[in-house]
Amino acid sequence: MADPNCIFCKIVAGDIPSEKIYEDEHVFAFMDISPLSQGHCLIIPKEHAVTLHETSNEVLSKVLPVASRIVKAMGISTYNLLQNNGEIAHQAVMHAHFHIIPRRNTGEGLGISWQTKEGVDQKTIADAIRSKF
Amino acid sequence: MADPNCIFCKIVAGDIPSEKIYEDEHVFAFMDISPLSQGHCLIIPKEHAVTLHETSNEVLSKVLPVASRIVKAMGISTYNLLQNNGEIAHQAVMHAHFHIIPRRNTGEGLGISWQTKEGVDQKTIADAIRSKF
Repeated sequence: MADPNCIFCKIVAGDIPSEKIYEDEHVFAFMDISPLSQGHCLIIPKEHAVTLHETSNEVLSKVLPVASRIVKAMGISTYNLLQNNGEIAHQAVMHAHFHIIPRRNTGEGLGISWQTKEGVDQKTIADAIRSKF
Repeated sequence: MADPNCIFCKIVAGDIPSEKIYEDEHVFAFMDISPLSQGHCLIIPKEHAVTLHETSNEVLSKVLPVASRIVKAMGISTYNLLQNNGEIAHQAVMHAHFHIIPRRNTGEGLGISWQTKEGVDQKTIADAIRSKF
């Protein structure tokens, strides 16, 4: 189901133009209009879902093989795949989307800072996850 | 095929211990030992491949549905999914891996800076990608 107020649903419908690079029954891919590097593009489910965990498994299973095809077609080997869920996690458009962000040089692409959190109890949360499976 | 020198292949084989949370025929998931936030975990293909685009489509199709299950089991709704390819893109272990990094608070998780690159010609690269499909 499309959301009539969603910019990405409008792109999928063709009501807003985009540099489309791929489309099939389940997913749609197009160039990012504010790229972090040349080739920065997005893969989105055609069905409207806000987050990864609200997207159907049928659609989720199609995304990464399409990412692999796009990367090979671009002829790049260094890049980030990023998918953000929630405003606090830098999600800006509330329709699930997967960024492919080429990184050819140090002066472009996704800026990442990696600060290990001290005192995290991974064992307890692992037990909690395992108890749900 | 496992790579005898790969730390993640050794984790899959059980030769190095891990807080495993999920395993099936194709993928293996475990808690990150240097987490950016509580619940930071990794999903990896069991087959050895360095990057996303070197991983088989069969395996790639399994990863995101597993990510969705893990996120639901953790009971979180805000998180980043990140997969890095190449040292310049912050890949630290040369066996493809997908980070799930919960982001509950501002003071934890993945640090992202977003600097749009000026003067990028997205149309030309879109044409190049389309010509390969």
